[in-house]
Amino acid sequence: MRIVFSIGDIHGTGPEIILKSFLKLRQTGHSFMVAGSYKAMEFYRSRLDLPIELELVSDVAEVSGLCATHCGVLPVLSVAEPESICPGVVSADAGRIAMLSVAAAAELCRQGVCDAMVTAPINKEAVAMAGFRECGHTGFLGKLFGVDSPTMMFYDPVTDLRVALATIHEPLEQVPELVRNMDLAGFLERLAVSLRTDFGLVRPRIAVLGLNPHASDGGVMGSEETESIGPAIDRVADRLLVEGPFPADGFFGAARYRNYDMVVAMYHDQGLLPFKVLAFDTGVNVTLDLPIVRTSPDHGTSFDIAGSGKASERSFLEAALLAIRIVRNRKQIDT
Amino acid sequence: MRIVFSIGDIHGTGPEIILKSFLKLRQTGHSFMVAGSYKAMEFYRSRLDLPIELELVSDVAEVSGLCATHCGVLPVLSVAEPESICPGVVSADAGRIAMLSVAAAAELCRQGVCDAMVTAPINKEAVAMAGFRECGHTGFLGKLFGVDSPTMMFYDPVTDLRVALATIHEPLEQVPELVRNMDLAGFLERLAVSLRTDFGLVRPRIAVLGLNPHASDGGVMGSEETESIGPAIDRVADRLLVEGPFPADGFFGAARYRNYDMVVAMYHDQGLLPFKVLAFDTGVNVTLDLPIVRTSPDHGTSFDIAGSGKASERSFLEAALLAIRIVRNRKQIDT
Repeated sequence: MRIVFSIGDIHGTGPEIILKSFLKLRQTGHSFMVAGSYKAMEFYRSRLDLPIELELVSDVAEVSGLCATHCGVLPVLSVAEPESICPGVVSADAGRIAMLSVAAAAELCRQGVCDAMVTAPINKEAVAMAGFRECGHTGFLGKLFGVDSPTMMFYDPVTDLRVALATIHEPLEQVPELVRNMDLAGFLERLAVSLRTDFGLVRPRIAVLGLNPHASDGGVMGSEETESIGPAIDRVADRLLVEGPFPADGFFGAARYRNYDMVVAMYHDQGLLPFKVLAFDTGVNVTLDLPIVRTSPDHGTSFDIAGSGKASERSFLEAALLAIRIVRNRKQIDT
Repeated sequence: MRIVFSIGDIHGTGPEIILKSFLKLRQTGHSFMVAGSYKAMEFYRSRLDLPIELELVSDVAEVSGLCATHCGVLPVLSVAEPESICPGVVSADAGRIAMLSVAAAAELCRQGVCDAMVTAPINKEAVAMAGFRECGHTGFLGKLFGVDSPTMMFYDPVTDLRVALATIHEPLEQVPELVRNMDLAGFLERLAVSLRTDFGLVRPRIAVLGLNPHASDGGVMGSEETESIGPAIDRVADRLLVEGPFPADGFFGAARYRNYDMVVAMYHDQGLLPFKVLAFDTGVNVTLDLPIVRTSPDHGTSFDIAGSGKASERSFLEAALLAIRIVRNRKQIDT
């Protein structure tokens, strides 16, 4: 299969972790390529002195004719080229190139030229400066594929922990209302489908966290558990293995996540705080509900170490390996 | 010194962890006692067959005349006695006894008969059923001592992690407004004083987390970081070592908490999720800003295992040891 990497913010660690991952991935026998800037890839390749040959691809039409990876060359589709490259700097130009690369990679997957995309980190501020209204991958890809709100899920291959977010990049103030108004039962059903299709889990066990401290202690601190979350769980209980709502801190503190295939968090930090502590540098982000396969590392651009050679490629590498697994699982179900 | 334990919810694991901790604490040479129900303490002592002799104390006046701990006996001041004892059941009676015990223990500390109190876990639903308006220890003790909003802090002696909460047991929906309206600069100043007084840290380093996902990524998702949290940090920057606001998930994921003496979280789960994952069973809760010393374990009543003998006393034991340390530190500063 062929996997495409979107370059991410060229002033962050994206190009570096792509290059370092490729050094290991090319031994898998699969084919890999970058959608982004040739100039930026060559800048970091030469700066870090990595034994990789890059191949400039100027046109999408050339992609299907490329040789497989084991020839050792990494093809780079030039989507847009920067005026200059300044590691560590937030800039509109880098934000623009980042998102054009995501769009190009998605298009390659939509056309079936590539089987999956792995996205290097972007900086939301840079993307906003470039004038994009959707500043995150998940929302941007949702718009591109006409999916209202794709699900953001995190997976750690070491602990086998999966966390899905009911809300994503909204200000915290909007979260309670979003939770009250969302179709949580439908969300849980879609999650179960993804766990079957993408992870091969026939009868997945799902845990749902509460929104309020102590999951509201029976309604003492907030009402979303008793009025929205609990009823939604009840509605799917006859056909899915779903339990909750659990007090988030105690649930993770007592390692109860080990009893479930998936934990549903109500908002970004509720899911990502325990996930990042438990997953160290192996966590991976997956977008569910899309017609294509998309994974990414679970960390940001790390502007503070961009260009220094200090970035760990571990999460990006795991993201690519997971993309390969998901493609395989989906193909098995199709045939 | 003499430390008093409030009994907690007598249908939870409170009495058990008090008894198990006492087995180890009595070797410290300090004096310990329980404020609560003699009947409940004896119920669990006999059920778990623990080699402890309890001594019924009917009147506060008797307390100062009690022998020191190394005589092996644990005095129990009978504050209120239950009709029956039903492990695992949420009841108004247990809620009432729990809070009366807290009040009695606090009074013993206020009078100087005891040097510190360690509170066993209560169940907020039971306390609400008993008609109390303040359902948490921190708020209840604040009222008792006329302190507007005492600070809830968590400490793990193993990782040396300290986490303070800017808001506590409010529904999540109220948190953003509370954060915008609070005197965060004053809060940071009070924290620094407590770190000096109670933990002996002369020049404490404090990290502040953002409220929104990614700490709003420069204002893209929410405005509290740029309009409230950042300015508050700036206001104290000339006299305190305070940094932030940091994106919470990345901060803990990259273990940056190791560079600080204290992490300030904006709300309950933001602080407690990483804390409980990192602290396992050694985490301790401390209430700052009170004229007395109060610590507690960082877990709940564990109704599911109440009376079974399976409860771990580790956190309660650490809470008692920390109380002893804080009393020592305060006395050193006084003299």
